[in-house]
Amino acid sequence: MQVAMIQDKIVPFEELEPVYLDRGIFFGDGVYEVVRSYNGRIFAMEEHLQRFANSLAAIQITGVEIDQIKVRIQRAFNAAGIANAKIYFHITRGSGPRDHAGDAGLKPNFFLTVTELPDAIEEKTKGIAVSTHPDWRWKRCDIKSLNLLANVLARQDAAKKGCTEAIFVDEAGLITEGAASAFFAIFGQTLQTAPLTANILPSITRKFVLQAGKNIGLETVEKSLTPEQTRSADELFIAVTTKDIVPVVLFDGKTIGDGKPGKYTKLLIQEFQKFVI
Amino acid sequence: MQVAMIQDKIVPFEELEPVYLDRGIFFGDGVYEVVRSYNGRIFAMEEHLQRFANSLAAIQITGVEIDQIKVRIQRAFNAAGIANAKIYFHITRGSGPRDHAGDAGLKPNFFLTVTELPDAIEEKTKGIAVSTHPDWRWKRCDIKSLNLLANVLARQDAAKKGCTEAIFVDEAGLITEGAASAFFAIFGQTLQTAPLTANILPSITRKFVLQAGKNIGLETVEKSLTPEQTRSADELFIAVTTKDIVPVVLFDGKTIGDGKPGKYTKLLIQEFQKFVI
Repeated sequence: MQVAMIQDKIVPFEELEPVYLDRGIFFGDGVYEVVRSYNGRIFAMEEHLQRFANSLAAIQITGVEIDQIKVRIQRAFNAAGIANAKIYFHITRGSGPRDHAGDAGLKPNFFLTVTELPDAIEEKTKGIAVSTHPDWRWKRCDIKSLNLLANVLARQDAAKKGCTEAIFVDEAGLITEGAASAFFAIFGQTLQTAPLTANILPSITRKFVLQAGKNIGLETVEKSLTPEQTRSADELFIAVTTKDIVPVVLFDGKTIGDGKPGKYTKLLIQEFQKFVI
Repeated sequence: MQVAMIQDKIVPFEELEPVYLDRGIFFGDGVYEVVRSYNGRIFAMEEHLQRFANSLAAIQITGVEIDQIKVRIQRAFNAAGIANAKIYFHITRGSGPRDHAGDAGLKPNFFLTVTELPDAIEEKTKGIAVSTHPDWRWKRCDIKSLNLLANVLARQDAAKKGCTEAIFVDEAGLITEGAASAFFAIFGQTLQTAPLTANILPSITRKFVLQAGKNIGLETVEKSLTPEQTRSADELFIAVTTKDIVPVVLFDGKTIGDGKPGKYTKLLIQEFQKFVI
């Protein structure tokens, strides 16, 4: 008799709930998105859905109607009734016997959570510390996939160093992005971040930040930075859906500027708010 | 109220079963092993448990007693009563709210299946076709982790080309290993495979194959191959726990040898059987 074991309990294999045979857990064979709401309104929904569709196409999960996903997100968001919510959702290729090649007949699994998203007020007003970590991720970080162990390990390393975020440095010695954020530097009146040609996620917050930079009169440059260059920046910050812009005041132990959030970073935080209302 | 959604069903977040919040699915934050039995006896159990312990340590999942895992495997194997069984098991860092850094207080999740393992007789007697694929995997393939999307995508690409396995080629143009196997070439009386210094898994079957090669008088060389070199090999094969040695007779469409399993490969298959009885 084929059996399964969950912790120390043996169950017949045939009685396993499909969630235990999800290809998401066997292989990370799925893609995800995180959107957030500000005051009862989901921000940049269409952009996130478009990226989600791109991720699904990139790993060839078919048979998913993006319009249906949108309806589900809105239904769950309405049911939750949380004004400032974090909405996480993923789709995996489906549940089935563990076989790499998979089966074209599998039905994709959809999972979503709507949870309270506290304001990151302290991080935004005081700034955070970040530390660098070798970029161990795979070569398709343009796909927002469930293969995030490299990100987890980098974040755990950062946490041990008292840092909030890990910044990846690739084999060429160039910064790609944060473990769960885009990464920006300001030199004088120039806002700089890695180009999307690097192995990085096409961050939606990044796009809005670059627009905000232009709006406040900064020059924007998409060019990769070394850690050395970064240490001499006037200002640093990370950008991520759940917190938009968070100033970085310590980079691998080096104080950035005067150790407080920089003036342009603060202007960008204000400017960003115009997008979300 | 915080909510979750499974397919199109909304449920209170607090009522979610922990399996839905497994870090294995959110991040692939776990490691696994596959062992098999031959005629009622599990093969190379200690080697697999040692590698599993190494993988757990590498991603810093703590609080797992390997002896207890061994007892669980044996219990499940006995309960199944399958003579030739495939035993898959994984441990993830645990279930909790989705946060990269995780929580040191999480309790690891253990999951195992014991399923029938049919003999790969046809593949072994006729040989298989393989195709190459860029090695998109992360930089810690020495860890047997649940981040396997690159392997899945390569296997799906291979399947579309009528091939059974994908062989990874890294950015330097060198073959690393198969998507779910070690890869070997024979030139004359020399058995060649990539060294463990490459970004590859320390395959247990690989170790036994190298020993089998020595036993039958082959010279063994641990040196990476290019696809060009591989095309001119006298014999090729893959090695994997579930099938031990499977001859490769087509490599990217090129017939290897006379298109039938090679003589040394067949000798190795016989020699390998001595280890498992």
